[in-house]
Amino acid sequence: MLHEAKLKEECGVFGIYGHDLELAKLAYFGIFSLQHRGQESAGIAVSDGQDLISHKGQGLVADVFNETNMAQLSRSKDIVAVAHTRYSTAGGKGIINAQPLVARYLNGGMALAHNGNLVNAASIRRKLEQEGYFFQTDSDTECILNIVARYRHGGPEVAMQQVVERVRGAYSVAMIFDDKLIGLRDPDGIRPLCLGKLGDSWVLASESCAFTAIGAELIRDVKPGELIIIDSQGLHSKILSSKSGKGGLCIFEYIYFSRPDSTINGKSIYKTREQMGRMLAKQYPVAADIVTPVPDSGRSAAVGYAKESGIHFTEGLIKNRYVARTFITPGQEERELKVRLKLSPIPEVFRDKRVVLVDDSIVRGTTIKSLINIIKSAGAKEIHVRVSSPPYISPCYYGIDTPNEADLIAANYSTEEICQFIGADSLGYLSMEGLMEALNGKPHQFCTACFTGNYFAGRVGDDD
Amino acid sequence: MLHEAKLKEECGVFGIYGHDLELAKLAYFGIFSLQHRGQESAGIAVSDGQDLISHKGQGLVADVFNETNMAQLSRSKDIVAVAHTRYSTAGGKGIINAQPLVARYLNGGMALAHNGNLVNAASIRRKLEQEGYFFQTDSDTECILNIVARYRHGGPEVAMQQVVERVRGAYSVAMIFDDKLIGLRDPDGIRPLCLGKLGDSWVLASESCAFTAIGAELIRDVKPGELIIIDSQGLHSKILSSKSGKGGLCIFEYIYFSRPDSTINGKSIYKTREQMGRMLAKQYPVAADIVTPVPDSGRSAAVGYAKESGIHFTEGLIKNRYVARTFITPGQEERELKVRLKLSPIPEVFRDKRVVLVDDSIVRGTTIKSLINIIKSAGAKEIHVRVSSPPYISPCYYGIDTPNEADLIAANYSTEEICQFIGADSLGYLSMEGLMEALNGKPHQFCTACFTGNYFAGRVGDDD
Amino acid sequence: MLHEAKLKEECGVFGIYGHDLELAKLAYFGIFSLQHRGQESAGIAVSDGQDLISHKGQGLVADVFNETNMAQLSRSKDIVAVAHTRYSTAGGKGIINAQPLVARYLNGGMALAHNGNLVNAASIRRKLEQEGYFFQTDSDTECILNIVARYRHGGPEVAMQQVVERVRGAYSVAMIFDDKLIGLRDPDGIRPLCLGKLGDSWVLASESCAFTAIGAELIRDVKPGELIIIDSQGLHSKILSSKSGKGGLCIFEYIYFSRPDSTINGKSIYKTREQMGRMLAKQYPVAADIVTPVPDSGRSAAVGYAKESGIHFTEGLIKNRYVARTFITPGQEERELKVRLKLSPIPEVFRDKRVVLVDDSIVRGTTIKSLINIIKSAGAKEIHVRVSSPPYISPCYYGIDTPNEADLIAANYSTEEICQFIGADSLGYLSMEGLMEALNGKPHQFCTACFTGNYFAGRVGDDD
Amino acid sequence: MLHEAKLKEECGVFGIYGHDLELAKLAYFGIFSLQHRGQESAGIAVSDGQDLISHKGQGLVADVFNETNMAQLSRSKDIVAVAHTRYSTAGGKGIINAQPLVARYLNGGMALAHNGNLVNAASIRRKLEQEGYFFQTDSDTECILNIVARYRHGGPEVAMQQVVERVRGAYSVAMIFDDKLIGLRDPDGIRPLCLGKLGDSWVLASESCAFTAIGAELIRDVKPGELIIIDSQGLHSKILSSKSGKGGLCIFEYIYFSRPDSTINGKSIYKTREQMGRMLAKQYPVAADIVTPVPDSGRSAAVGYAKESGIHFTEGLIKNRYVARTFITPGQEERELKVRLKLSPIPEVFRDKRVVLVDDSIVRGTTIKSLINIIKSAGAKEIHVRVSSPPYISPCYYGIDTPNEADLIAANYSTEEICQFIGADSLGYLSMEGLMEALNGKPHQFCTACFTGNYFAGRVGDDD
Repeated sequence: MLHEAKLKEECGVFGIYGHDLELAKLAYFGIFSLQHRGQESAGIAVSDGQDLISHKGQGLVADVFNETNMAQLSRSKDIVAVAHTRYSTAGGKGIINAQPLVARYLNGGMALAHNGNLVNAASIRRKLEQEGYFFQTDSDTECILNIVARYRHGGPEVAMQQVVERVRGAYSVAMIFDDKLIGLRDPDGIRPLCLGKLGDSWVLASESCAFTAIGAELIRDVKPGELIIIDSQGLHSKILSSKSGKGGLCIFEYIYFSRPDSTINGKSIYKTREQMGRMLAKQYPVAADIVTPVPDSGRSAAVGYAKESGIHFTEGLIKNRYVARTFITPGQEERELKVRLKLSPIPEVFRDKRVVLVDDSIVRGTTIKSLINIIKSAGAKEIHVRVSSPPYISPCYYGIDTPNEADLIAANYSTEEICQFIGADSLGYLSMEGLMEALNGKPHQFCTACFTGNYFAGRVGDDD
Repeated sequence: MLHEAKLKEECGVFGIYGHDLELAKLAYFGIFSLQHRGQESAGIAVSDGQDLISHKGQGLVADVFNETNMAQLSRSKDIVAVAHTRYSTAGGKGIINAQPLVARYLNGGMALAHNGNLVNAASIRRKLEQEGYFFQTDSDTECILNIVARYRHGGPEVAMQQVVERVRGAYSVAMIFDDKLIGLRDPDGIRPLCLGKLGDSWVLASESCAFTAIGAELIRDVKPGELIIIDSQGLHSKILSSKSGKGGLCIFEYIYFSRPDSTINGKSIYKTREQMGRMLAKQYPVAADIVTPVPDSGRSAAVGYAKESGIHFTEGLIKNRYVARTFITPGQEERELKVRLKLSPIPEVFRDKRVVLVDDSIVRGTTIKSLINIIKSAGAKEIHVRVSSPPYISPCYYGIDTPNEADLIAANYSTEEICQFIGADSLGYLSMEGLMEALNGKPHQFCTACFTGNYFAGRVGDDD
Repeated sequence: MLHEAKLKEECGVFGIYGHDLELAKLAYFGIFSLQHRGQESAGIAVSDGQDLISHKGQGLVADVFNETNMAQLSRSKDIVAVAHTRYSTAGGKGIINAQPLVARYLNGGMALAHNGNLVNAASIRRKLEQEGYFFQTDSDTECILNIVARYRHGGPEVAMQQVVERVRGAYSVAMIFDDKLIGLRDPDGIRPLCLGKLGDSWVLASESCAFTAIGAELIRDVKPGELIIIDSQGLHSKILSSKSGKGGLCIFEYIYFSRPDSTINGKSIYKTREQMGRMLAKQYPVAADIVTPVPDSGRSAAVGYAKESGIHFTEGLIKNRYVARTFITPGQEERELKVRLKLSPIPEVFRDKRVVLVDDSIVRGTTIKSLINIIKSAGAKEIHVRVSSPPYISPCYYGIDTPNEADLIAANYSTEEICQFIGADSLGYLSMEGLMEALNGKPHQFCTACFTGNYFAGRVGDDD
Repeated sequence: MLHEAKLKEECGVFGIYGHDLELAKLAYFGIFSLQHRGQESAGIAVSDGQDLISHKGQGLVADVFNETNMAQLSRSKDIVAVAHTRYSTAGGKGIINAQPLVARYLNGGMALAHNGNLVNAASIRRKLEQEGYFFQTDSDTECILNIVARYRHGGPEVAMQQVVERVRGAYSVAMIFDDKLIGLRDPDGIRPLCLGKLGDSWVLASESCAFTAIGAELIRDVKPGELIIIDSQGLHSKILSSKSGKGGLCIFEYIYFSRPDSTINGKSIYKTREQMGRMLAKQYPVAADIVTPVPDSGRSAAVGYAKESGIHFTEGLIKNRYVARTFITPGQEERELKVRLKLSPIPEVFRDKRVVLVDDSIVRGTTIKSLINIIKSAGAKEIHVRVSSPPYISPCYYGIDTPNEADLIAANYSTEEICQFIGADSLGYLSMEGLMEALNGKPHQFCTACFTGNYFAGRVGDDD
């Protein structure tokens, strides 16, 4: 999948509780390592239990934080921090929607970092408005904050129970609640949330790569429906709602979103992707000279395909790491220019070769079409496209920014038609069975709505 | 080689002559594709032969240019453009030194884009000052501009002849000279310069990847000592100075600087790097489970090593594409943190494995040491470091920003000592002979000063 | 009074209701003309009754708004706008505290612009927190917003009645309440608020100079304790709380804060200041050659003093309209440098002259001391300082940023001592009686706490 | 004259030579006090005689300099500094044209600050280009720098003699020449340049108000055609060219440009303006109730008019010190809005009054027309406009940015017609004789080209 047409994950969350630590710096490194999950805004909140302060801004983590604001966030008495990096899927992009969302109190305070997308935000909001509450942001996350605030005096267990009962959809939450660090995951566990340890201190993060960054150890995943409370008494856990049994973790975390060096539910992301590539080679073998990935998203699966098929793995496309502006009006010519600026072929690799081109998914099909055209111009004899996931046919309502169904090529055309449209010599999608074998799992353990249209947790607007 | 300790190339140059073309946009895409050669400043100058205008700024190409200034640079009557992307090796970093350097005239104008480093800038400057000329920048490039200006009325051939006679060192130049596009390369051809064609129009660029970006075709390299004049009469070429026979193209362009999709002197950069990896496997075979590169610099050679050795190629280190700040005082701990933030290991790949770790070079040795430590912590059983070039023992005076000799680890320690210092289980550097075999060439065809200390074109300050 | 030591007013508010008007532009010009009341941040909110949008930023009105955001705020269907320009007296300076504060609803919305300072914000906040409400800003204004939100469903009359009953201190409010424009002034009317008309449309503003700016007509002042509701039914007014009878409008609005071209409670600010100057001339006549103001604050009173005394009015100090940085460590020498950079004497005006120097007030006394020194150095023979208000002895709790009592020179020294300290030949403060005569009023009609220490509306923190 | 239509002076220059002084800070304060002479860019250069460094930027002095760059400019060994504040009259506005222009040498350096406008820049440039020199800016000032550079080796006297012989037009120059401070003024002395002393150190500045700012003493004006050389030997002076006797100092420096607290050629600017007002009262007496200035430019003359006529001086127009954007398409309505936002009338001052409205000049007549309309709407019964200079009929070629003759109302209409156009009840311009009496001088002692069309120093482009 090409970056321009990439599906966008919405957020990364991070939380840490501990004494005598450089909490703000650890939070910074935590969300820096989760930067791939959102590049629109970033924020850190810290608290000593009484006085909560925060800094948020638009842009990349490295743009938002500087020596001045980091110094202000680095107070020796702080005991808890949460942080967030955001790509907006609900609510606008403005600074107003940057997270953590903060509630200030004369004593204490709350800061909320949320990954996911609620499906009944509008109806919750309507009820809260009738009770005299109001909203300062466009973000569905403020619903959670309002519910927690309303039940704050009952303590975190009471308040989070209310959240679980009222809110539907996907949510993985890291939260400062006065002097406590709270973790919460929706009953289906659609978005990831991991628990780690740094010395005696507890850490929460969307992905385990954040633990690696700060030198912490992955302990386990937070369970679907589980509330985690960390304070001076240590860690306290409670399942607030049992799993529906109809769905689970977003399967695209394995296919594309999570970083290859993360481990989720005990599975290495890299290894499962390599395995997907191996399965793909079994399902769609082809006589070819080289296996080459669309960098970087197709690389792990391409390595697997190469290992299984015995065809040499070769880099053939060079990715320009810098971002260009094009200054050109839209159109087919521009689309190809954009692809060519981003991904440049090595002619000597492709000339007269039969190529297996591996990517993780096809969304609209326009960029892979341009890419194939470019590779052919570089001299390739045959191009066999291999996709390490099933056809993408349904938009996501749980936190991924996807096009309308009308723009999803696989929702409207057969594999054969797509193959012809993109100009490939053959096209193979990994089957659902192959995917499950690679994951060593069953479909009901995952959210596979994008491949099946089965929205077990409802759709946005269902009850509005 | 890790990015933090990367050797820095100074510049990329681009020039185009033609009618009815969107010259500014083509120049923009040209230097965008040369962005890897310099990220400090960027600039474009265009001329209709009479009226020359330019825009320059600090930062990346995409930061310097926006719709407003691109619209100003996009004049329908323009016939020639040059552009530059810069990393400073001589002169300060300020906007004042950004290129193209411009000389304005009542009729016509000159704009100069230069890649390389002069060794006798100070003595040239002294002479010019005595003749009443002065300098507005800190850059050695202004010496060339001053010489050209002084002999401008004789036309480009006379003026450039003066440049070749007076100036020593490395220079590849793309220049607007009133209504002409000029290309010039130093007699040894130390820095690359290619000639291409886009339809009927001629193009000059540091690397052929810039031609790919704009859909142009590589015709040939500009020859050492060759002057190229392009105007309404077409292309005119003249050898202004014959090659010394003692040196040639910077060998590091093949090893690291140039983009893998470029072709220089008829050789594919990617292919020669893969070949270096193959030679390395022949010279330093080892019993191992995986071959993995230091991304991205070691990837091409690692693919070659894997092919030759039959050991599987695997990605094991995930590169964080974003830039972090560390907010931490210097020290060993911080160095490792920085490496870990940039390159994160996949534990499942390394656990209990014998690893061949491939990179293109070792400069100081501190970052590879941190990296080895990180990979060991991720569970690797053995780490065999393979370097696809000879030991780096001498600083560059021809346009690469290198540490002092005291900081070059291979200048001060034996391979065995380095192996011990970095904590590897074995260490192999590609020999000069192996390198030459990979390049299918002879040492005297290249500048190999960094590996040999043989400065055939003199050193900076020699005659000051 | 010199600008560096100026007392700072906190805010200017503006509101307008009407169809087919360029509401955002009118709001912009409104707060631009109130810019003297606050330079830290500015904001505008507009609504069509359903959909409320806003833009806020730090800095001057002209810095915060540009063509892009003004275009976004300029929607043809909008019917109501409020705007704010801020100097912070309570709460921090960050963007988070910029006004109008906004509450978003699925249908409708509220935007609140507030001038004044609450004295019981902490206790209100404590109660609201116990009811499950929370705060996102540091500003006391959010208390008002929370109260209104809680009682929103009863409509504006019910909600604003709650505000009046719960809140104590100074507040003049312009507010969007769904499809209505609301005006509210505290029962004592401490901060000004005027009602105007532009064609058929109603306008609210802190000062009438905002009406002049947009071509509107001043109708009357909003009465103390009065609620104004403007909607499609026209204007509806109700006195929510009767005046305490113990205080009234801040007397410093007449002395210094308001713009000379504003009219408050039927009195021209300029004319009352001229009248203060006349009274001052009657109370403290002196044989002198020239009357000269400390520009710009003393100019109106100086004109009055000159008219009454028959001594020629002359400009003698030139004010540098630009803002300097000093880059110098604090100290007496720097203080004088800063004064001299800001106010430069014309030697030919002062040489051998007996000077009456008129200003509106003395706060710390350090800058007038420097200024007298500068004028003496320019050759003045005698300097007679005349102050057009009584000695300033008590800090303000109702919306003016004042030093501690310990730093108020008149709170600690006699007039004679002050005269000696500042180096004047004589010093005269307008008496309270003279001030009242100039205002044609009685002390109980004004808040005179700064001259008397009589805090009839309580002090900040009284009931915390 | 209203600010929007103000004539713009191009520059202020400042220079200082001395040991053990905070040269950069003194230069900063110097140009800060000359900020009224140019607000587009600012710059400071300092040198120890060998190593010259500088900082320049676009915008106000306070925007260009901050603690970081001031610290870099504050070197203890420096002995000479020059500084500049610029409004562009020739050349574009870009940073490239910001002054001081700098010439760097291996030993020493030059930095040039220039006020004025050359009339033969193009022909000089053509000659220099033929000799091999080139230009990096659009500014005519670079001609001077190029000439000096060419003759640098003869020393400053030789080089500056060349400047005087080759260059025609207006120039007041402060320059670093290696280890010397140079002052130079054109033979007619069109632009001002003063010599002052701070302790043992010499100072140069466009106006004496810069000396007041730094606590220096005005010694005398630099003479027309005089070269000043200041170095370790002290001050050396030489008349390089004798005055033509046909013209002299720009008379508009007295009327409007210079700050009222400056003294030029022994005359206080404020006093001469007051005197112009007195002469105006004598020439155009009128029965009226108040005299009021257009602030700030008419204030000094209005005070004079009031003194002479015995009519009370009153402020009636309040100037908004902040800058607004209007976001409105051009047109008559907008013009009046702009005037009203900038200058707001006090109705109580004007109601039923006969008003004498004093300003220093009328350029286009459009803004005074709007202003009269505004004052009439505020209730004035009669408005008698008095202008403290003769009709402005000819554009300036010597450093003032003026409209074309077609746009100068007095170049095209009689006083009676202008009176009718602007809607005044009467209009009186100070006659040339009255002006000379106020200045106690003769027309040939001044450049009066704007009132007479007598361009004694030629016009721009004369010899091109």
